[in-house]
Order: sequence, then structure tokens, then C-alpha cells
Amino acid sequence: MNRTSATNVAGSTGGTGGAAERLVVIGGDAAGMSAASQARRMRGPDELEIVAFERGHFTSYSACGIPYWVGGDVPGPDRLIARSPQEHRERDIDLRMRTEVTEIDVAGARVRSRDLESGAEAWTPYDKLVIATGARPVRPDLPGMDAPGVHGVQTLDDGQALLDTLAATRGRRAVVVGAGYIGVEMAEALINRGYEVTVVNRGAEPMATLDPDMGRLVRTAMSDLGITMVDGATVTGIVTGADGVRAVATQEGEYPADVVVLGIGVRPETTLARAAGLPLGDHGGLLTDLAMRVRGHENIWAGGDCVEVLDLVSGSERHIALGTHANKHGQVIGSNVGGGYATFPGVVGTAVSKVCDLEIARTGLREKDARRAGLQFETVTIESTSRAGYYPNAALMTVKMLAERRTGRLLGVQIVGREGAAKRVDIAAVALTAGMTVEQMTALDLGYAPPFSPVWDPILVAARKAVTAVRRGAR
Amino acid sequence: MNRTSATNVAGSTGGTGGAAERLVVIGGDAAGMSAASQARRMRGPDELEIVAFERGHFTSYSACGIPYWVGGDVPGPDRLIARSPQEHRERDIDLRMRTEVTEIDVAGARVRSRDLESGAEAWTPYDKLVIATGARPVRPDLPGMDAPGVHGVQTLDDGQALLDTLAATRGRRAVVVGAGYIGVEMAEALINRGYEVTVVNRGAEPMATLDPDMGRLVRTAMSDLGITMVDGATVTGIVTGADGVRAVATQEGEYPADVVVLGIGVRPETTLARAAGLPLGDHGGLLTDLAMRVRGHENIWAGGDCVEVLDLVSGSERHIALGTHANKHGQVIGSNVGGGYATFPGVVGTAVSKVCDLEIARTGLREKDARRAGLQFETVTIESTSRAGYYPNAALMTVKMLAERRTGRLLGVQIVGREGAAKRVDIAAVALTAGMTVEQMTALDLGYAPPFSPVWDPILVAARKAVTAVRRGAR
Repeated sequence: MNRTSATNVAGSTGGTGGAAERLVVIGGDAAGMSAASQARRMRGPDELEIVAFERGHFTSYSACGIPYWVGGDVPGPDRLIARSPQEHRERDIDLRMRTEVTEIDVAGARVRSRDLESGAEAWTPYDKLVIATGARPVRPDLPGMDAPGVHGVQTLDDGQALLDTLAATRGRRAVVVGAGYIGVEMAEALINRGYEVTVVNRGAEPMATLDPDMGRLVRTAMSDLGITMVDGATVTGIVTGADGVRAVATQEGEYPADVVVLGIGVRPETTLARAAGLPLGDHGGLLTDLAMRVRGHENIWAGGDCVEVLDLVSGSERHIALGTHANKHGQVIGSNVGGGYATFPGVVGTAVSKVCDLEIARTGLREKDARRAGLQFETVTIESTSRAGYYPNAALMTVKMLAERRTGRLLGVQIVGREGAAKRVDIAAVALTAGMTVEQMTALDLGYAPPFSPVWDPILVAARKAVTAVRRGAR
Repeated sequence: MNRTSATNVAGSTGGTGGAAERLVVIGGDAAGMSAASQARRMRGPDELEIVAFERGHFTSYSACGIPYWVGGDVPGPDRLIARSPQEHRERDIDLRMRTEVTEIDVAGARVRSRDLESGAEAWTPYDKLVIATGARPVRPDLPGMDAPGVHGVQTLDDGQALLDTLAATRGRRAVVVGAGYIGVEMAEALINRGYEVTVVNRGAEPMATLDPDMGRLVRTAMSDLGITMVDGATVTGIVTGADGVRAVATQEGEYPADVVVLGIGVRPETTLARAAGLPLGDHGGLLTDLAMRVRGHENIWAGGDCVEVLDLVSGSERHIALGTHANKHGQVIGSNVGGGYATFPGVVGTAVSKVCDLEIARTGLREKDARRAGLQFETVTIESTSRAGYYPNAALMTVKMLAERRTGRLLGVQIVGREGAAKRVDIAAVALTAGMTVEQMTALDLGYAPPFSPVWDPILVAARKAVTAVRRGAR
């Protein structure tokens, strides 16, 4: 233990305030503060001192809610905050807001931090360390990317900055760069605010997390919503004028813009971890064991958007920035730090989203994921409805299913449809976790009543067709 | 094969029209006609002659849709018919409408039928027999039960008769006897038609398929909808006047009624099977093996509402009248009759329903089911929302979960809530099928986005609480 370790920076913190051990948490959002809270539930302040560093203005907030705040569905940002700094402090967590950790000294078991207001630096020793540094949005190194009116939407601060721009801008043309989850959700937000929205997308179809045939359905639906969809576009820069952004330039042409939102994706924020020599994976995220302990480091845990997770279907590591995983990681870390035992076994890659009334869902592997994993498979696509066909508001949905060749094991499901479509993916997510075959799935006892499902749920219809495909392909 | 067997009734059918074998199906609704259709897909008319008997006027219809037809949500009854007699005949199924099978001669491998129009009787020999005689509504032997204005809602004919009564009746007071699925759905239907609705129920709470604590939530919600809920009532008869029904009489008092709907439940219609000496279970349903073959009878299959099914959680047989099971049974039977191979492994007891905007769902075992099965268990109940708490129209739901003591195996889930509540039960249905523990469930990768779920889905919240309960109870 290092509670009395020397420090070489003025203003350092020593001692653990009388506690037996000190836990240091880097990052005050979902993973970090869930870990801190769970550790606190298991061990009181006499046993465990908890110090948490957050460089921003907020803790424990829903970044996933930002598009709905921007779109006006949610008054904010207060509603997006699950627990304020003050609430954490009331639970005996020593939370240092606006304080950035600038170095992890693994050998010395301490972190260096800088108060972003005063500039003061300090070393804080730890017995146990949790790294929850999150992700950072991809921001291409192109002309004009830092111009006024070009916004990411990763943090509440980003959301507020975008809202300030929208309030100050008279023009009503918005360009969203990127057509993944954030891109399509921001397209909805801007449509809801009355903007003319153009989505500029590098891929051939939007939603690259789906197979292209399913992405095509999303493109059609978004076009029908009045969104201008520009696919296969390479952004070359942002055209700016005296008052900020004027257009998004691509190799093919310019798209006039009064505001630009970047939704190109995120990367694990592992600058500190990399500098400290901690193990990173192919996607740049920290590598942990199943207890969320950083590999090879007994006293360091990591979770949330800065780690890679095991994909249970492909058997390989992925990077998935999603609040629901971050919260689970935090719970697992907090339990282990608190002397309990918990694991995060991995993910199956479930994600749901919507654009106005279009619902989009996926779980498991896309065709290219399956090929990359060395799997051979059959694919089927069916159309069905969310309710009995004769029931009012029965909404069409398209379900695509992948099943392994010969074994018939479920590999993945993608759904594009209207109300009642997206959350059906959970059925497949549980079946994937359980390693079910599509034949086993055909016998699933799913809830049936005319307002909720056709007599064969769309997932069952897809499974039945997949059984036939697997049989035909058996050789 | 009996294609040339002698018959002792005038008008009997011999020969198989040149086909190698004859399949006889008793019952023209979901199970029977699914079996016939699937068998036809697998074997052409040259190989297999198919004769189906239906005593009513309709085939392959959704009885589950009747409440929505009566309530005015669905124009009908045509919309409720999946496949008409003519469509079946076009698929080379020799369908005998309004023809009732009156005897199964197992030793002689033939059935006796009576044309309900002409009264003509005939024996039809079979090589393979499918019994799909459905269920009949419970109609207590009490005074006035057969009076004009007292209606069951089991068949399309029943639905039409009820609608005729509603059209002819000026009074607006409806009493529904029974508060199970049919009872609560008919209460909604009659509310939607502008009736004053009273639900008279024998149990202490409505929805006896839920535990009483969850049933209480349903009662409160139904009362809030303006429905008069009379619980713990013993119906003693129907009070009639010159023009039909006047009131429903109970031991406690009379409830004035211009129309009465019976929703007391159904029993397997196995009169023919019983007379033929076929094996019946404790609930009066036919007993089959996993291929839906009647036990001990190589050439007789049975499916749908007339059979008992294996409950995979309790390990015992149950009777569940539900179209989704009937369709699966039909598929399995048709595949096996057609020379393929399929099984119906059993059910986990999933059911969903709604009363106006109240959603009700269950899967697995109630407390009393678990006790009856010899299981010890922990129960937890949580409240959560269908969407992120900050998202518009986030609706409260209550989730109750049962987990086995010590092992933590999931035993059952019940949900009462608003929009987005009911179909979440599918997550638990798949987890039950897979034999998951509540601890395994806490790691499920369920779809998360603010419009679709809180960051911890309600099912995960319940699972987490159940883990704690199981740990506390471990001894």
C-alpha cells in the first residue's frame, strides 16, 4: 500500500483519511461512478476511501440522451444526469470535478492530476485504480473541422454548445456527417427542430452496423422522412465564412450548412493508459479479464467506453461505446473492488435506435463479421408485422437472420421496422447468449396476443425460414 | 391400411382416391389445418389423401381476435380468417364443413361423421389420424345460463351471436363473468363499445394466472378505467325476464345486465378421445409424446387446445389454450405425418394480454406453481419504466421475478404496466427455455437506447434484485 508514498508535486494528497485502502477512479461518468458507488455499498468509508477525478462539469449522465435533448424531446441537461457530484459526495465519494488526470504511474501506484480551474497539480497514491476514461469522438484532421458551428455530441458540454449554436443561427440547413447511431439520431433531432437535414455518409448505405441490404431500408425510410441522404461521400473539409461554417465539402460537391454535426464514431480514450504501458487491443481499447481487471495488473480495473469487450459470438474483441455496458462494467468492478465477485462475460452486440418512427435493431454478427470470424452461414430475410395482421396499426418489419451452416446455431439478427420492431431483437440476444440453434428458436414460447404479435412472432417466422435454409445448405 | 375397409353406415367413404395413404383430420382450426397444410407441403395428393372434418362454418381463424372484433378494433369476421375452406380445398385438402365427427374407432382405424345439414352419417377409414378438437368454454350448470343474451366467445359463431345481441339490445349494462384473459379482453371490448361494464370474478383478484399481488395491480387499473370489479363472487345463476337476461346473481347480490359474457375459461374438448379410450391427463387433455403423437398410438397425433403440454419449468403437464401453441403443434404434426421429423419440446407458460392501455404478461411459474412443483424460491418485485426515465411517455411497469433458492435459476416473471411492458416477458421466456440463472441474466446484452429502455432494462433490474435475494437466502 502506498498511502504514505512521497509525492513530487506540490499539493499532493497523501494518507487515506484513516481508511484501510484508497480506491482512485479516473472518470466520473457511467462506468467510473457505478464502480465507485457499488464499491461504496460494499465497503464503508472506514474501510475504503474513494477518490474520483472528472475533468468535465457533470457526473453520471446519459450521453445517449443528448440527441433527444437537442431534438427537444427532453428538457435538459438536468434530466440526463442520474447522479450529481453533490449526491456522490453525500455517499462519501471524494469527487474532484474539473480535475484531469494527466499521468498514471503504475510502478509508483499513483496518478497525477491537474485542477483545470487553478492549474494546480498533485499526485494521488492508490491501492486500487479504476480507469473509466471513456471514448472520444473521431474528428478528422481536415480543414475547418474546428470552425464555429461544427459540433460533436459526446458530452453534455458538447450538447449545450450545439444548442447554443442552434439558438444563434438563423439558417435552417444542417449537415450531419456520419450515418451511424449518432448520425441518424441527430438527423431525427434536427428534423424535429425544423431543420433541412442532409446526412453525408462515407459508406454505400447508412447504418454500417447493419448489412448493406438492411441499411438500404434505413436509407429509403430516411429519404421518405425528407432527409437528404448522401452516400459514398468522402468529406474533404468544412467550408467556412466570416461567421463560421458555410458548407461541408466532399470530393463530389459541397453541401450548404448553417450547422454541422459530427457523428463519425468514437475511439477509446486511452491516451493515459497507453502512456502508462497498459495493454491495449487492436481497437485501441484497454484489455481486461472477465472480472474487468486490466490484464496483468492485479490492482487496476477498467470499464466503459475505454475498454474492449469480448464478443461471445465471434470470440474476438470489439469496441462498443454504450451506456448499458458501461453501467454493467461499473457494477462488476465495484463488486470486485469491494471484495465481492462478479464478471462481465461479454456481449453479443445488441444495439437499437430510431429515426422518427423508424426502428432499427441488430444483435450478433453481420455477414462480414461472420466471414471474418471464419464462420459459414445461411441468411434469410422475412417481412412480418408487429401485431396480428388484422389488428389496428400492425406495422411492417423486416427481419434478417444469420445461422451457422450445418449446426444451425443462431449468429445474428437485424431488424428494420416501425413501432414494436426494435426491442424484439432482445429475443435473439438471449438466444445468442444461450447458444441456441434456429431450430430450437422455432419452439420458443413467446408472448402472443393480437395486439402484441402475429400468431407466429416475426422472430419465429425468421427462425423457421432459417431452419429450411440450414437444411437445404446441409452438405 | 384400411382404404378398403367395410363400413356399416350408409354413405361411407372408402378408397383414398388413388393416394397411397389417407390422413384424416378432426377439427378445421389452427392445429388441424396447420397439420393438414404442412403435411400437404411435404407430400402431394398422389402420396397422401387428406380429409378434414369441421363442424362449424369457418376454418383457420383467430379465436384470439374475437374480443377485438366485438370491440370494434377489427372489422370481421373475415379479417380473422387466415385461410378459408375454399383456399384449403385449392391445396387438395378434402374439407368437409359442417360435418361433425361423432366417433373414433381406434381398432378399426376409422371415424364416423355426421353432416350437420343433411344428417347423413358415414365412416371414413384413416391410415393416419390427427385429433384437433380444440377446447370448449366452461359453462356452469346454473339457472339461466342458456338464456338469450348470455354469450361465450370461443368461436366466430359465438362472436357473431354476441354482436347480434349487442345490436338488438338497448340497455348498456354488460356483466362479464370471469376475470382471466378472455374476461379482461371482453371487458375492454365492451368498454370500447360504450357499455357500463361489471366484471364478476370468483377469485380474490382478477387474472388468476398471475400471483395475487400482481393481480391486485390489474384490479386497480381496471377500476381506474371505470370497470366495476366484483371479486370473491360466487355466481348462482342468471336472472332472466321475458326478453332475456336481466342480471347476474351471486351469493352476495345481483348485478343488473343487458348482456352477459362468459369468460370462465375453457377445458379440452376430448369427448371423442375419451370415448375412444385414448390417454387423457389430469386436466382432461390428450397426452402426447414430444412428436405430438398420442401416447401408445403409432398413427394418431393430437394438437392444439385439446392436448396437455409439458411445462418445461415445473416438469409437469398443463393445459394451455393458445393459438400460438396450436399453430406450432400443427406444424410439428404435419412434418411428422409428412415423413419428416419435428418435436414440440414444451412450453414455459408465456402469455400476454391487455385491457385498454394496461399490459399484462407472465411466463414460467407463479408462487403456487413453484410450490406445487416442490421448488423453493425467492421473489422480488421492482418498478421501472419502459423507456429512459427522462424520455417522453416513459411508462411505469412492475416486474415480479421468481428465482430458485440456492441455484438462482429463473422460475418465472410477471409484468403489469403500460406501453412497452408486455413483450418484455419474451426475454424471460427465452431465458427460462435456456435454463438461465438470474445472475446470468444480469449480464444479458439487451437493446438499449433512451426511447426503448432505461440503461438497465426492467428485466435486468429485477434480475439484479433477484441475485441479491438468492445470495441472502443461500444457506
